[in-house]
Amino acid sequence: MRRVRLIGIGSGHPDQITVEAVRALNEVDYFIVADKANGTDDLVRIREDMCRTHIEGEWRIVEVRDPERDRDPVDYDQAVADWHEARAASYEQVLLDHPGDAGFLVWGDPAFYDSAIRIVDRIHARGNVIFDYDVIPGISSFQVLAARHRIVLNEIGQPILVTTGRKLAEAVAAGHTNIVVMLNAGLDALRSLSLSKGDWTIYWGANLGTAAEVLVSGKVSDVLDEIEDARSVAKARAGWVMDVYVLRHR
Amino acid sequence: MRRVRLIGIGSGHPDQITVEAVRALNEVDYFIVADKANGTDDLVRIREDMCRTHIEGEWRIVEVRDPERDRDPVDYDQAVADWHEARAASYEQVLLDHPGDAGFLVWGDPAFYDSAIRIVDRIHARGNVIFDYDVIPGISSFQVLAARHRIVLNEIGQPILVTTGRKLAEAVAAGHTNIVVMLNAGLDALRSLSLSKGDWTIYWGANLGTAAEVLVSGKVSDVLDEIEDARSVAKARAGWVMDVYVLRHR
Repeated sequence: MRRVRLIGIGSGHPDQITVEAVRALNEVDYFIVADKANGTDDLVRIREDMCRTHIEGEWRIVEVRDPERDRDPVDYDQAVADWHEARAASYEQVLLDHPGDAGFLVWGDPAFYDSAIRIVDRIHARGNVIFDYDVIPGISSFQVLAARHRIVLNEIGQPILVTTGRKLAEAVAAGHTNIVVMLNAGLDALRSLSLSKGDWTIYWGANLGTAAEVLVSGKVSDVLDEIEDARSVAKARAGWVMDVYVLRHR
Repeated sequence: MRRVRLIGIGSGHPDQITVEAVRALNEVDYFIVADKANGTDDLVRIREDMCRTHIEGEWRIVEVRDPERDRDPVDYDQAVADWHEARAASYEQVLLDHPGDAGFLVWGDPAFYDSAIRIVDRIHARGNVIFDYDVIPGISSFQVLAARHRIVLNEIGQPILVTTGRKLAEAVAAGHTNIVVMLNAGLDALRSLSLSKGDWTIYWGANLGTAAEVLVSGKVSDVLDEIEDARSVAKARAGWVMDVYVLRHR
């Protein structure tokens, strides 16, 4: 049976990939890679470093044109769903055109805020291509964040809320006091919360696992400007910035 | 500078460990391993398999007597804190008695519901042993769960609550509809919730990554008994059972 493999490759450091994932990298016939307009040279370089480090011999990349996404939709959920369907059709065509086992290189872990599983699910359900698929877990950026700051993500016996910058205000309003924030897009969400009034601590990091990695931690009220600067430095150094943080109330 | 390394080794499969962790396994002079009364032969065997697979040559284990823990305390948080302090003293003695770089083999990821970071933090703060320490992230059991069930842990753009069996009822009462439950201890928490009344789906797994791995998914009301049976099978096969699940309301 033909296989499609969704391979978690970690957040950027070539050694933060599992032995299982390395084996999968070596087993597939080609990788399907989105030719995203917003892809940066540095991200392509990191991915190539990862392949060069871990793949014996050559590897083959098939680029797929990623459909346009409405970045400012009226209905956010519907826009994302439409985009997934368009992507499914586009990726399905690649599978139809290219026989053999295909691999998806998924940043972090396919289980967190990533669309690869949903796309492959949709292709599978459409039934135009017959294949089996598996998922190989990877280290997500917030795990690298926790490791670098040497923190446990939960307080003893307590829950952890993992959410997005978009949903942060909602989480704080609901009384959560230990929050992992992914898909961050600037510090507006943080600034607008006026968390400085409470005794909130932040553990922040950007471009984790890469040469442009930056870390900041401290009381939110004390370090917001430092984070803003560090974010700019990371972006200037790498050409892109992806940050994640833990917010904790004492 | 002498180093202590907290190495996430994944949930049981010898290949679900990162290349970074494999390197660390090979760099330390010895591993500190708790001589826990509740350790089972099978868990010791899995850990040994992992070392045998990934370490070049010999490795050295220093056993440490783990202090007794009050399993039925009046004040849960205080009991855990007391236990951590007693462990710190016990582990500190090992570092004093054995020079060189020490490694902790941490199941899953040190960032989730694990005490190793807190113990090493305490030893560091006590100041009786001078060392630097680092944390190497690992694949946590709930990531293996998501991979095996081929699910994304978040619904599109939505948060994920990670909590414990002990805190499950609280999470449901607070309106959470997408919950990862770790440190599960039987199905009592699930049964007592009468989730069957709502349209809840469960993705459950035990002994993930090991030979005794079992998976069940479906509507909670339909599969609770199947899970109970699968749990017994895993326990009978391995001599121990560790399960984790995702609960999701549609």
